[in-house]
Amino acid sequence: VSGSASIVGAGPGDPALMTLRAQQLLSNADVVLYDRLVSPLILDMARKEAVLISVGKEGGGPSVPQEVITDWLLQHVRDGKRVCRLKGGDPFVFGRGGEEAAALAAADLPFEIVPGVSAALGCAAYSGIPLTLRGVSASVTFATASLQTDDDPDWAVLARPGQTLALYMSLQRLQHCSAALLRHGLPASTPAALVAEGTTPRQRIVRGTVATIAALATGVPSPAILFVGEAVALADKLSWFGENG
Amino acid sequence: VSGSASIVGAGPGDPALMTLRAQQLLSNADVVLYDRLVSPLILDMARKEAVLISVGKEGGGPSVPQEVITDWLLQHVRDGKRVCRLKGGDPFVFGRGGEEAAALAAADLPFEIVPGVSAALGCAAYSGIPLTLRGVSASVTFATASLQTDDDPDWAVLARPGQTLALYMSLQRLQHCSAALLRHGLPASTPAALVAEGTTPRQRIVRGTVATIAALATGVPSPAILFVGEAVALADKLSWFGENG
Repeated sequence: VSGSASIVGAGPGDPALMTLRAQQLLSNADVVLYDRLVSPLILDMARKEAVLISVGKEGGGPSVPQEVITDWLLQHVRDGKRVCRLKGGDPFVFGRGGEEAAALAAADLPFEIVPGVSAALGCAAYSGIPLTLRGVSASVTFATASLQTDDDPDWAVLARPGQTLALYMSLQRLQHCSAALLRHGLPASTPAALVAEGTTPRQRIVRGTVATIAALATGVPSPAILFVGEAVALADKLSWFGENG
Repeated sequence: VSGSASIVGAGPGDPALMTLRAQQLLSNADVVLYDRLVSPLILDMARKEAVLISVGKEGGGPSVPQEVITDWLLQHVRDGKRVCRLKGGDPFVFGRGGEEAAALAAADLPFEIVPGVSAALGCAAYSGIPLTLRGVSASVTFATASLQTDDDPDWAVLARPGQTLALYMSLQRLQHCSAALLRHGLPASTPAALVAEGTTPRQRIVRGTVATIAALATGVPSPAILFVGEAVALADKLSWFGENG
């Protein structure tokens, strides 16, 4: 038996938001290399005989260095295993799936990439935030406020009106994000919402404006996504999923 | 029995990229209102007894006006049906799910919104295009080149470097899009790829640059998504899904 790898998006949190293909690959894998944000309820879908290895990435805590993760991935495939590399959300949106796929391709090992419901899509649907909306928001941008390089994102672009902005991993830098958006000309009245632990039973939505959201969201747990834009105001009416807090 | 609505993303094409929740709601629905881009293979998951109604939206052809679709949706819920409103991709990304959810909320009818793998995520994963990539692409923007209003998107924002751009429904306006991006300063050498019928057995990838892609993609069928950005170059190495053409 020759090994193979699948780089799989596990979706935003709710196990029911996994894709059929993700479930199939997970339930057939010999080895599962999973990120910290993947729910235990999802890992339960693996075979009893499967080897589950946490690589602890995402969200700040201690983690296995990327080159070690990639090394393990390649090694298990070379050992003839069916390896499922399971990531939160979508592997190609802040998931570093591109780097891991490039390593597999360079080593001439077979792989498959399975897209997932990215966290912004899941949090938006479960909190009633249309990402595009006729006459209000013509585009949506997924960005992050904690770039590895310590470079800031292109705030001038993110502050333009007529779009919706989804800022991943922004919880520790809310005040910084708000200030940067305001400084680049986004009106202070622009609606903003922070969705924490989105799509899970612990989902919490904090609503405000780009000027007030940082103060309102004090103490909210990670992971969280910050949404900014006029369409975000609809969350007041369209929220349908139970929320705490 | 009282009725309820679910506004459900069917994913990008491959039926295996539906979510578990989408499949569950579809297979339990009394009435399915579906868009033209939803695959017959997905509709096969509905109950035999379910009433399937095409509303023919997306992609240009004849379609039922939005207010009629919304009217049907509300009427079937009021009739006590479990109604599944099935859309291609994700309901909140160019899916007008926000408008339909707002109508349900205004009528005080129960609804649920199920996110899906948006077409850009599906096409990117199945053609090996990382949407974000460390040191190369810090954000990704989903936009469309065929706005209902005939207003153009904010090309100055879309032409900024360091990001990946996914242009939905751009096939009929490729030349226009390329010209606008170049005029707003995007380098002519910026990699571009058009992915047509992505995630299906008919998937086709045309690779070029923002300057050449329109000429190279002549005759490519819809639906298609145009990707632009330095990370798009990785499709040369990371493409793993069978392609025609």
